[in-house]
Amino acid sequence: MILAEHDNPVMPENGRMMVPIKKAYEMIDKMREKFFLELPVEKISLKKALNRRLASDVISAISSPMHNISIMDGYAISTSDRYPLALQEDIYAGDEPGKVLGKGKARYVATGAFVPEGADAVLKIEDAVIEDDMLKGISLEPWTHIVKAGSDFKTGETILYENSVIRPQTIGILHATGVSSIEAYKKIKVAVVSTGNEIKNGMTKDTNAPMVCAMLETWGCEPEHIGVIPDNKEETVSVIEQVTKDYDMVVTIGGVSVGKKDFIVSTIIEGGSVVFHGYRIRPGKPLLVSYYNDKPVFSLPGKPTGAYTAMELIVRRFIMGETRRVKVDLPVSKDIEFYSKGFDYIVYVEIRDGKAVPLGYEGSSLELFSGRKYGVSIISASPRSLVADGYFMARDNLKEGENVTVNLL
Amino acid sequence: MILAEHDNPVMPENGRMMVPIKKAYEMIDKMREKFFLELPVEKISLKKALNRRLASDVISAISSPMHNISIMDGYAISTSDRYPLALQEDIYAGDEPGKVLGKGKARYVATGAFVPEGADAVLKIEDAVIEDDMLKGISLEPWTHIVKAGSDFKTGETILYENSVIRPQTIGILHATGVSSIEAYKKIKVAVVSTGNEIKNGMTKDTNAPMVCAMLETWGCEPEHIGVIPDNKEETVSVIEQVTKDYDMVVTIGGVSVGKKDFIVSTIIEGGSVVFHGYRIRPGKPLLVSYYNDKPVFSLPGKPTGAYTAMELIVRRFIMGETRRVKVDLPVSKDIEFYSKGFDYIVYVEIRDGKAVPLGYEGSSLELFSGRKYGVSIISASPRSLVADGYFMARDNLKEGENVTVNLL
Repeated sequence: MILAEHDNPVMPENGRMMVPIKKAYEMIDKMREKFFLELPVEKISLKKALNRRLASDVISAISSPMHNISIMDGYAISTSDRYPLALQEDIYAGDEPGKVLGKGKARYVATGAFVPEGADAVLKIEDAVIEDDMLKGISLEPWTHIVKAGSDFKTGETILYENSVIRPQTIGILHATGVSSIEAYKKIKVAVVSTGNEIKNGMTKDTNAPMVCAMLETWGCEPEHIGVIPDNKEETVSVIEQVTKDYDMVVTIGGVSVGKKDFIVSTIIEGGSVVFHGYRIRPGKPLLVSYYNDKPVFSLPGKPTGAYTAMELIVRRFIMGETRRVKVDLPVSKDIEFYSKGFDYIVYVEIRDGKAVPLGYEGSSLELFSGRKYGVSIISASPRSLVADGYFMARDNLKEGENVTVNLL
Repeated sequence: MILAEHDNPVMPENGRMMVPIKKAYEMIDKMREKFFLELPVEKISLKKALNRRLASDVISAISSPMHNISIMDGYAISTSDRYPLALQEDIYAGDEPGKVLGKGKARYVATGAFVPEGADAVLKIEDAVIEDDMLKGISLEPWTHIVKAGSDFKTGETILYENSVIRPQTIGILHATGVSSIEAYKKIKVAVVSTGNEIKNGMTKDTNAPMVCAMLETWGCEPEHIGVIPDNKEETVSVIEQVTKDYDMVVTIGGVSVGKKDFIVSTIIEGGSVVFHGYRIRPGKPLLVSYYNDKPVFSLPGKPTGAYTAMELIVRRFIMGETRRVKVDLPVSKDIEFYSKGFDYIVYVEIRDGKAVPLGYEGSSLELFSGRKYGVSIISASPRSLVADGYFMARDNLKEGENVTVNLL
């Protein structure tokens, strides 16, 4: 067995290196740093930016707004003047900036127009009365209905940070900053490999590979499902050798337990270098993370929720970095008693009537068991558990009504 | 002016038909029904299903699991037998179902293997002791470590409903149900049209069009940004005529107010049929919804948050139907006083330390004003306000600590 040279491997206990989640995160973060240092960067236009990952901070090239603008159709005035005011020429959105308001004067400004120099408020058209070409209106506080230049952001300000993924809303912000292209990491090519005779011969449906591919896609990767390796050592070695040459990284699914036909484990141990095998998380504890041919290989457990959890906690962190999930504190809807100690349990929940309803129990959309002990192995075998709104992490038993911190998916 | 024949138009008041949100939803739902009735349906493979919208319910073709399966590596036993037990042949995942367990016997079963007939529990390998080819272990409750056939879902059960959009997780579920293709609505071709001299000549950055396109893309549409119409009536008419012939639907941005150069409004009123113009929502109240050449046209206000709100509340509903957003009740972090009555205010928030922090105020990532009155016009002009975690809807002033229902984005 070759130990990982890349990171701090934890020595195996009973053939399995089971690390706590904090240690797993540390290792993943180191792997990530190395991986992204070597990942090519390319300049892409904003048109192709959706779902791409920034390789550098985005600094605004302009102030926004560039000049004071009116946010109403109305009349630009100076609050130090008194009505009635004589009218000067109108100003529309798109007119040049730098126009001036005379003392004792008012100018019609359209929404989005630059407010003339000397004006410090806009009287809404609904509040304006024009008589004999003179404007009367109501008294206004300074800066009413004006957005000041640079109030949204200023030239040189950092708007988005390296490693963030471009979302529909951030596309809008990017355009507002005056930049026309961004530096993005090359799309990561990922080979996704299923394993197991029961998948190969169709006895069990391959729930995981398409889910894994879809998740990778939403994280800006280019996944490809290579196929299913049957329970055969030679084939396992040959496929792993090939894909670790052809792709930037590899995700395998299944065959990571201590069963008699879990060939992924022996293949990696013999030909690769283990970073860790097993983490103190349920569901999904047999997760195996390694390098093979110097490429990162994530070997997920085969139960759907275990695979999903490892994707969410570990692979997502590897690709996206320590990305903030929106968290909310909610009372849990049931007592929960965990079977064994020493694990962080990931409990998937639906949010209903302001409560976190654990999947698997009565009253949730997936009622697999009605006892009080949390049957993590049963729930992790259920594809239907993937409909969760979020999850919380817990180590100790919980009473109904106790608050938990739900990470929203 | 031609009134809409399709729906129940509300008569204009002062040239603008301002409808409450409930009425707006009703009208959108009717438009939607008509639109989707006419939208072609196609059969697509699960490989192409991500982000597509289902045109029919998905019914499971199989039970899941198909047979009782073991969720551990261990020994299938009958809880009515007593240790020690004689060993029969091993069973692996992928082996044929229908094997049998003899009385007083045990069989090794791998994770994922079908449990033999006659067995009602699996003894974990860690709890098993083999001496002289006989198995000893601990006493088990019936059905320990077994997922019963059909416990996840059954043949003929409805798994996903018409109109839902396929997400990474649901891809997994779809594969589990044994269906190989789905009926999906044809991708909706949407023309996105910007307006305004200030956009055309580059004085103001076009924040909205790319954001609108990206949102439509995540909702499974095929958007195309046609370009920018300057403030010119003839060009406005000619572009609207053309795109309503070439596309399934149209989204225009800007030019929907009561300003002197808002040519979208007059073009639609003269050549199309208005469904409603204006809804009692801030930001974004001048939203104009219409038909032109019998195609739905959504004319958004030009301020980014107004445009975003109309996309989120109205266009999303038109495309996706009444889709559930995850909601959480949170205390608001500041007193909020609204400027004018008679509107539902959409207040964008960040979620921090278990509180809903309204954007625009001190302490939020966007500090545009520090007064207590909610400056919806200012906030809606700010592209940076698009970084929100969610929003709540409120009609009356709020005190710090009062609970609001946040819709998570």
